[in-house]
Amino acid sequence: MAIVLYDLIDKAGRRYSPYGWRVRMALLHKQLKFDVELCYHSDKKLAFTGQHLVPVLVDGERIVCDSWNIAAYLDQKYPDRPLLLKEPAEHSFAKFVNKWTDTVVGRPLVRPLYLDIWKSLHPEADASAFRKQREQRNSATLEELHARRDNYFKDVNHALGPANALLSEQGFIAGEQPAYVDYILFGTLQMPFVLGIDPLDKSQGALRRWREQLQLRHDAWAKQLNEAER
Amino acid sequence: MAIVLYDLIDKAGRRYSPYGWRVRMALLHKQLKFDVELCYHSDKKLAFTGQHLVPVLVDGERIVCDSWNIAAYLDQKYPDRPLLLKEPAEHSFAKFVNKWTDTVVGRPLVRPLYLDIWKSLHPEADASAFRKQREQRNSATLEELHARRDNYFKDVNHALGPANALLSEQGFIAGEQPAYVDYILFGTLQMPFVLGIDPLDKSQGALRRWREQLQLRHDAWAKQLNEAER
Repeated sequence: MAIVLYDLIDKAGRRYSPYGWRVRMALLHKQLKFDVELCYHSDKKLAFTGQHLVPVLVDGERIVCDSWNIAAYLDQKYPDRPLLLKEPAEHSFAKFVNKWTDTVVGRPLVRPLYLDIWKSLHPEADASAFRKQREQRNSATLEELHARRDNYFKDVNHALGPANALLSEQGFIAGEQPAYVDYILFGTLQMPFVLGIDPLDKSQGALRRWREQLQLRHDAWAKQLNEAER
Repeated sequence: MAIVLYDLIDKAGRRYSPYGWRVRMALLHKQLKFDVELCYHSDKKLAFTGQHLVPVLVDGERIVCDSWNIAAYLDQKYPDRPLLLKEPAEHSFAKFVNKWTDTVVGRPLVRPLYLDIWKSLHPEADASAFRKQREQRNSATLEELHARRDNYFKDVNHALGPANALLSEQGFIAGEQPAYVDYILFGTLQMPFVLGIDPLDKSQGALRRWREQLQLRHDAWAKQLNEAER
């Protein structure tokens, strides 16, 4: 029996559902034949699924709702077809998290900390060069950047949302055990932690638990803030 | 010869370098013994590396700068130790991208499109329920959300930065070939595309090329906007 994809249609005949597109591309990727059944918004045609949202996949007796569930179902049911969720090569996950951490998380995090860092520079460091470079780059004094701290930290918390959501469902970003993908974000969050500043707001409960777990690893190495190196 | 990690120290003895922390955790993860050499900001001690930034790893004759390069080096040099960049199990990459797309990308993208979607609802859809639900959820009328479109799209472009950066370096988010992780973001970007709206600003050249590549796959399926289903 043919696979049927229930997708959305508007009055101009356009199919714009993001989740419909995910499944459509997933079916093409797996080189599976399928028919499409087009539904309007909250179409009663979907009543048999017990909910009202596209996409829905019907494969023989099986009814699968939700694009993520459908992708997972397709890989499990058709493992000999090109895989959708197979972990890709080339370290792409860590690369993505690296880009994400260093831009939308790291930049708004470090800017209001420059003043703290400048004040704490080692006596032999060139403090005036440190200040000058960062003030030029950001077109603001370190004091001005510091004064905008609440706004910057709001941006940080907003950007961290997806990580907190993931960590609400699994122990580490990498999965059940930590890997470099965890250490990327962890490293960036150690900066304010070590400086005695906490940028995480109340919404970040899962991130806090994760950070604590990583800090306690390896005889709590990452809790050693200013002790002599072991 | 022992591995030496060059890390940063401030005048209070604190080590707050995010990139230093990444490498520190990476070395612990790999259960490698190492000594630490602490440097102040732009310390001349690092002159032998040809640059002035921590972290630097010295492993015998080998000098490796930059935390990412160090992680890759450690996995390559010590493959029998726990891997850092091995792709993790449990579909964590796709899960992370799913969370990221659906929150910081998808939410600011869809809000100003609700008015367009409402206008294009299929004649049999319940347009007033569609409007009411979204207006309550966002505490604004669809017209107000539409009026803030430029600001919302600015947030979308900001959030997309890491994806554009990754796609400047490789063909697809998954690596050399697309996988579900690509279709997640692609699906979300098909929504405005199909509706004839382009939220991507000039900075997103790599994302545009990637979207075009995916649209051309499978006989350019994703270019079929309102034709009869094939």
